[in-house]
Amino acid sequence: MKPLDLSLHLVTDRNLSLGRDLLDIVQAAVQGGVSVVQLREKECATREFVELGRAVSSLLQQSSVPLLINDRVDIALAIGADGVHIGQSDMPYADARRLLGTDAIIGLSVESEAHAQAAEILDVDYLGLSPVFTTPTKCELTESLGLEGVASIRRLSRHRLVAIGGIHHENISAILKSGADGVAVVSAICSASDPLQATRQLQQKIAV
Amino acid sequence: MKPLDLSLHLVTDRNLSLGRDLLDIVQAAVQGGVSVVQLREKECATREFVELGRAVSSLLQQSSVPLLINDRVDIALAIGADGVHIGQSDMPYADARRLLGTDAIIGLSVESEAHAQAAEILDVDYLGLSPVFTTPTKCELTESLGLEGVASIRRLSRHRLVAIGGIHHENISAILKSGADGVAVVSAICSASDPLQATRQLQQKIAV
Repeated sequence: MKPLDLSLHLVTDRNLSLGRDLLDIVQAAVQGGVSVVQLREKECATREFVELGRAVSSLLQQSSVPLLINDRVDIALAIGADGVHIGQSDMPYADARRLLGTDAIIGLSVESEAHAQAAEILDVDYLGLSPVFTTPTKCELTESLGLEGVASIRRLSRHRLVAIGGIHHENISAILKSGADGVAVVSAICSASDPLQATRQLQQKIAV
Repeated sequence: MKPLDLSLHLVTDRNLSLGRDLLDIVQAAVQGGVSVVQLREKECATREFVELGRAVSSLLQQSSVPLLINDRVDIALAIGADGVHIGQSDMPYADARRLLGTDAIIGLSVESEAHAQAAEILDVDYLGLSPVFTTPTKCELTESLGLEGVASIRRLSRHRLVAIGGIHHENISAILKSGADGVAVVSAICSASDPLQATRQLQQKIAV
């Protein structure tokens, strides 16, 4: 198995895709250089989620980009996705790992140092630090971690870290300097007028 | 494995439980004679659903009543439930069967003769006929099947049939006479002033 490239995640949001077909956005993002695609659907019927997941999975077959499913272990199992990204209100990590097996990629969102500390005993593949900056994607009012929060969690955690929340090409460098191994974006790609160019621009900042 | 008693399903709905603890209602329903418990949670975070499912499963350990999970195959797998009940917008039957295995109980909702016809080739454990009568539980405006609809599906289907929707102790007999093998209720137990007595009253009508 080749090492997991966590540098740039696309997290999908059809509501933020300006009415465009999600598959076109995923295709552009893959062409532009995302290293992970995470399919996030919070209000979609299971049947539709399965169908969408299969379509994205099929599109990604031609690339080496892994597909993660947000929250729903059943969708990941049904479509044979590479893994899941789970949050603190999703399935407990131990259950998800047991159902998905040792080879699956499992990322876990942490929103505080306490969460990150609790994750030290877990063999997660990465921690998602959320939110690093304030963001229109998350409705709930979670306090943002900021660059200092990323740096603090970097000091205490043995895991690889992916930052999410309010990330765009102008703040990526600072986030990586603070200790993140990669970033995840939603609107910076989904809402971009040109998702391919936007992804390239993000990836260029990461490659520096 | 003993034969599955489909006579009386409790389908849970915390919103219709008048603020009472769902575990108390399930306990009363089991004591009163329900033969299946189906846990239905449409707006609950996965973590909470897992925890609730484990609590209900633990409660049912002392009985012979199987636990089915509505829609969510991941919850069923995580907590080791006996099976799932899926609808036309949930995971496709073939995927659910593959993930849960041949021993799992899988019920499928059908809302029309066409749905029932399409289910003839599936090895489902039962069909849920929904809704038989109009009901406050379902927000969507699906046309009700009525007793004639139950009778028509009885004639065309090889499967065991469980009717749901607007069922109470005064119409159970007519539904069973129309060809249903059992009934599923939500508010007739969850919203009853005395769930134990309400269940006994329903089971008495079925046993006649």
